[in-house]
Amino acid sequence: MKAFHRSSDAVRGPNFYRAALAVALAAMAPALAADSLTGPLVLKAQGSFFVGGVTEHTDATTGTPGGFLFPNPDDIQVNQMYVQYQIPEGAGRHVPVVLLHGCCLSGKTWETTPDGRMGWGEYFVRKHHAVYIPDQSSRARSGFDATTINEVRLGTQPPSALPNIFTFGRNGAWQLFRFGPAYPAVFSDEQFPVEAIDEFGKQVIPDLNSTLPTPNPTYANLAALAVKLNGAILVGHSESGFFPEEAALTNPAGVAGLISIEGVCTTNLSAEQIATLAKIPTLVIYGDHLGDVPSVSGFWLGFFQGCQQYVEQINAAGGDATMLHLPDAALFGNSHMLMQDKNNLQVADLILKWINQHVERE
Amino acid sequence: MKAFHRSSDAVRGPNFYRAALAVALAAMAPALAADSLTGPLVLKAQGSFFVGGVTEHTDATTGTPGGFLFPNPDDIQVNQMYVQYQIPEGAGRHVPVVLLHGCCLSGKTWETTPDGRMGWGEYFVRKHHAVYIPDQSSRARSGFDATTINEVRLGTQPPSALPNIFTFGRNGAWQLFRFGPAYPAVFSDEQFPVEAIDEFGKQVIPDLNSTLPTPNPTYANLAALAVKLNGAILVGHSESGFFPEEAALTNPAGVAGLISIEGVCTTNLSAEQIATLAKIPTLVIYGDHLGDVPSVSGFWLGFFQGCQQYVEQINAAGGDATMLHLPDAALFGNSHMLMQDKNNLQVADLILKWINQHVERE
Repeated sequence: MKAFHRSSDAVRGPNFYRAALAVALAAMAPALAADSLTGPLVLKAQGSFFVGGVTEHTDATTGTPGGFLFPNPDDIQVNQMYVQYQIPEGAGRHVPVVLLHGCCLSGKTWETTPDGRMGWGEYFVRKHHAVYIPDQSSRARSGFDATTINEVRLGTQPPSALPNIFTFGRNGAWQLFRFGPAYPAVFSDEQFPVEAIDEFGKQVIPDLNSTLPTPNPTYANLAALAVKLNGAILVGHSESGFFPEEAALTNPAGVAGLISIEGVCTTNLSAEQIATLAKIPTLVIYGDHLGDVPSVSGFWLGFFQGCQQYVEQINAAGGDATMLHLPDAALFGNSHMLMQDKNNLQVADLILKWINQHVERE
Repeated sequence: MKAFHRSSDAVRGPNFYRAALAVALAAMAPALAADSLTGPLVLKAQGSFFVGGVTEHTDATTGTPGGFLFPNPDDIQVNQMYVQYQIPEGAGRHVPVVLLHGCCLSGKTWETTPDGRMGWGEYFVRKHHAVYIPDQSSRARSGFDATTINEVRLGTQPPSALPNIFTFGRNGAWQLFRFGPAYPAVFSDEQFPVEAIDEFGKQVIPDLNSTLPTPNPTYANLAALAVKLNGAILVGHSESGFFPEEAALTNPAGVAGLISIEGVCTTNLSAEQIATLAKIPTLVIYGDHLGDVPSVSGFWLGFFQGCQQYVEQINAAGGDATMLHLPDAALFGNSHMLMQDKNNLQVADLILKWINQHVERE
């Protein structure tokens, strides 16, 4: 894996161009300061596309035999992964960042926070990284395969064939995501904007991953995306915390860095798998209050311990893995949704620093 | 409804600022020409938020009794509408545009086309309009209420209670969307990028509108969005072709203009409803080959005729409604997905001209 080095398009060009730019910068600094948090955002490009996907023949496209003008048997696309991206002016050789959401959420995770502040998606763009935000295969704009649900409705499959649609409500989220010991009690140093809990609840959408084949196509789709980008840092969160590693085990060619946020680390990997992952700089991040919500403390402390073990395994194999437990960096009160916490940009700055030191190696 | 007038932030300010800007423009035209199709895109702001949504108590959040640490009974958010937006530098008083997708699709409709060209979302931003792109309530990043599906799985509801999940495949889309008479035959002047049919198929996702209460909450959500924006043009397509009108009938306060693309017009409105709608400039758009796909020609010709009747009703009530049948404007071969057709920006230019003349009234 080559190291990535920073360069800036903004200082290239002939003297005339540079002189004119200096005048422009003096008069119009806000319009050009791409790393300002408040000035205009200057994009070189943006858009969206799909990675992966296969054609599947289905007998039940509409759920109603002979319904609404459509032939019921038809060929549909399934398992594709929707990806939205922005490339800032002056990204230079900064490594692209892929931000993948967790369970029962979508790419919205990385956008405007529930209380209206800037999310990591735009922040990383303003910090000169191209940013790619997928919806997991079978979620949100990636769509899902409704065939089984339609077949149960048509009577050709039993109700037991229905997928386990995974979602959760306010009370479940409050505890599992460590906003406080139980709704509506809040930790005194809680960083999640709990006043916007219902706005957060609107981001919580049904998770249909149980409709997917094994292995989850999102792994290969992430790996293919990294190859397409000619190198990218893959970031997973919660349910998808270990998806970046799974992508690298599928095909490490494009994976420049691995960041696992508040996920479950796999601790029973083979020596060969560990060797593959040890070639890629890895950062594991956990927030605060891991043992402070009675109903889920065993859950979080166990995951944290598993990830500590994983980091040790990678380093023992000659790798470069870092465990960032935010309280150790003097950031306290962070929830499971740390990319939306009130100090979310401070957490992002720690990631940017790690990218700089471990992936781009300035 | 007040008329909207164009102004440009870029020419405001003291002489010094203007002089410096002139130098900058000379040297860096690509970086500042926001209406260029190839230069950088300069955004004043971007982000996402939800409109609407209610708290619902559900007995089945996970689909598995006692499953995975979550209490099954919980309070979830339903009926909300996800909205993503971009505001260009220099939008001035240009009217914001809300672009709403149709059946079995998402906000992706308005982004990069299946063959990789610029979509209307970015194009309207480059033409100085703030653009708001929702996912309909119950679709994509807006999520949906999975309670009934989970209840059928749990055995507390019969399979007949399952929602009619609406979707379609390649053959259905090919005919209904008029890419040609039947897959894979193409009209000689077809404008849809049929070589990217499978990429288009990846945009087609299950439509769960049948899980929604009546009236569809998207109507009120659109109306609330228009009010929040202090005036907006609402654009609907196909399934949502008449949603802008439904929004205006819910609350016309924020609706500055109505654009219905290839949808079904309601022709049995009351005089009072017609009077409400006649106060808002209206544009109805249809593409080509309406009668040329044997399996659906009655369908499209009937809808077109209904919309012609609707336009006449609005104008008879003193309104300002325009029927734009693209072949009448010398644009031929346009499909149902005209915002993705090869000449999509030419079609957009006709809309921009209409906005200029009928809504902003220059």
